[in-house]
Amino acid sequence: DQAFELDNNPHTRLNILTGDWVLVSPHRTKRPWQGKVEDVTPDNRPDYDPKCYLCPGNGRADGDTNPDYTESFVFNNDFAALLPETPNGSLNEDGLLVAANQKGVCKVISFSPKHNLTLPEMSLEAITAVVNVWQSEFENLAAQEWIRYIQIFENKGEIMGCSNPHPHGQIWSQGDIPLEIVKETERQKTYYAVHRKSLLANYLKLELEKGERIVFQNDHFVALVPFWAVWPYEIMIVSKRHVNSIKLFTNAEKVALAEAIKVVTTKYDNLFETSFPYSAGMHQAPVNDGDYPEWHWHMHFYPPLLRSASVKKFMVGYEMLANPQRDITAEFAANRLRETSNVHYKISKA
Amino acid sequence: DQAFELDNNPHTRLNILTGDWVLVSPHRTKRPWQGKVEDVTPDNRPDYDPKCYLCPGNGRADGDTNPDYTESFVFNNDFAALLPETPNGSLNEDGLLVAANQKGVCKVISFSPKHNLTLPEMSLEAITAVVNVWQSEFENLAAQEWIRYIQIFENKGEIMGCSNPHPHGQIWSQGDIPLEIVKETERQKTYYAVHRKSLLANYLKLELEKGERIVFQNDHFVALVPFWAVWPYEIMIVSKRHVNSIKLFTNAEKVALAEAIKVVTTKYDNLFETSFPYSAGMHQAPVNDGDYPEWHWHMHFYPPLLRSASVKKFMVGYEMLANPQRDITAEFAANRLRETSNVHYKISKA
Ligand SMILES: O=P(O)(O)O[C@H]1O[C@H](CO)[C@@H](O)[C@H](O)[C@H]1O
Ligand SMILES: O=P(O)(O)O[C@H]1O[C@H](CO)[C@@H](O)[C@H](O)[C@H]1O
Repeated sequence: DQAFELDNNPHTRLNILTGDWVLVSPHRTKRPWQGKVEDVTPDNRPDYDPKCYLCPGNGRADGDTNPDYTESFVFNNDFAALLPETPNGSLNEDGLLVAANQKGVCKVISFSPKHNLTLPEMSLEAITAVVNVWQSEFENLAAQEWIRYIQIFENKGEIMGCSNPHPHGQIWSQGDIPLEIVKETERQKTYYAVHRKSLLANYLKLELEKGERIVFQNDHFVALVPFWAVWPYEIMIVSKRHVNSIKLFTNAEKVALAEAIKVVTTKYDNLFETSFPYSAGMHQAPVNDGDYPEWHWHMHFYPPLLRSASVKKFMVGYEMLANPQRDITAEFAANRLRETSNVHYKISKA
Repeated sequence: DQAFELDNNPHTRLNILTGDWVLVSPHRTKRPWQGKVEDVTPDNRPDYDPKCYLCPGNGRADGDTNPDYTESFVFNNDFAALLPETPNGSLNEDGLLVAANQKGVCKVISFSPKHNLTLPEMSLEAITAVVNVWQSEFENLAAQEWIRYIQIFENKGEIMGCSNPHPHGQIWSQGDIPLEIVKETERQKTYYAVHRKSLLANYLKLELEKGERIVFQNDHFVALVPFWAVWPYEIMIVSKRHVNSIKLFTNAEKVALAEAIKVVTTKYDNLFETSFPYSAGMHQAPVNDGDYPEWHWHMHFYPPLLRSASVKKFMVGYEMLANPQRDITAEFAANRLRETSNVHYKISKA
């Protein structure tokens, strides 16, 4: 009889933040791929594109003209999924048809005036400026009393539904607390009630002892592949200090976060020597809704590429109907990312 | 002051099967699309491909040769994500690193010997034969006492991660109950305990009264766009009779199910005059684990196309980090699908 091995046998792992499980099939990496291969978009954009609605001085869909900005630039999304003026209302027919209005504000943040940059190619100072904008936008939105949650995120790359390659992110804020945050709140709250320490603080302690899933750390942040990662090279950045939102980050922490983001996204680009697509975003406590002392700020990176610049993991079929599934282990991914250089391939090859 | 309108104002809707919510942004359909456009794979395959591992008489990765089959053909997945021989074992470090082995059996079902067909292009008899195979495979797998859940599904189209265009589906069966089934069991059980009727029986009754989300019905099945649909043209087929698995379908029901599948997939192809990609699969009661009288068999179709053969909905960023979101309403989608012909465009144009 063989013993059960995480790096060899199919198994499930618990996501301690959501209570969900992931199916891991470590033996399946040998599967040949005869399916869809992504186009790799050539990476030779000009630093200014007269047709881009994010470049300085250009016009936008709502008729406005962008200022000649030099760092980042924030505006309301011209095609917002959520609107502040939504009338109140709800529906409940026998608990079978249940709906409620949802107010919100959607913003777009251009990360840089330069059309041809991405976060890993920006300087530490420029990324720190982006972190500053995230913090101040968070504070501005939280000042609107009806807002309960502020989702800061970035979609990078065409295959992640990003409709414009100009480096930018989004903020969707809303009157109710979205699904993933409800789940993470519940688990963190339960844990905190028992341990009087945050779930992620104890998790981080254990991971730092083990080392095998750590990708990078500095004085204030750790980047690791979570034990329960779903996406092939998924990463979570966690603050070493237990704070429940970006609002509480000091200047030193903001620089350290910028560094962690630069290192993670550089390693990503280096992995397959391509501009690495992902969706990334922060999870933090709801606002205007009490204290949430259990909440521990963190940032998820969900990148789809599996084997190369053109072969991604599809979350389809079994995954949509039954359970998320992955082929490589979190430990394998962490090891590859750790070994990958922190110097961007465009620089080291220049 | 304006009144709240489901077809006009951003709102959330409850998925009564899972307890999850979807954010609906009906006003957002005007958004222009400058992002990724999918390649439309030309639809001119031969009816036999000597390199296809599903065509009759061809060799497969495990060294086997396919028989000269004339209807459908079932074999164990050569690159199975789950294996029956997995050793038992588990891990639990302080509730932070939690994992357990998972045994399973993964099968592949070729729907037809013809390489160039898809379900909507197959005859009612041929689709009925596929339904028969699903039923007998379900019974065979359920006869293995350690199996708790049997997921029958199909990934259709390259953008749904389907690695071979030969018409085929899969069955992944396993020793534990996967996430989506745990959620749907919980909600159906709670409802059944209170109402002594299945959740979906009462939901179906209400939907048939209203009519606005119904796409098709025959004597035994209803195809509708669920009130809480996430994917643009999502459909759920529900059995009119409350049975908890495919095992209990009569011959008449199996023919009626084949018809419902033929109509739904034909309408899909006609919508954008393209071979419409989707992941589809049945949800039914766990096996070898008691009675599950609350469970009501149904089949989900999750198709990604939004506006044309080449523009899909991306579930990224906000959707991954916070909450699923859609731009058109379920009512709009149902209306378009209802109006779309039941005769396949390749036939009506021939
Ligand atoms: O087994 P296939 O068809 O090669 O693979 C496809 O379906 C599986 C089950 O939904 C997924 O895990 C894969 O990501 C997908 O590419
Ligand atoms: O607003 P964008 O960048 O055009 O749109 C992108 O991000 C949104 C938020 O994650 C998604 O709803 C869209 O499906 C995606 O294409």
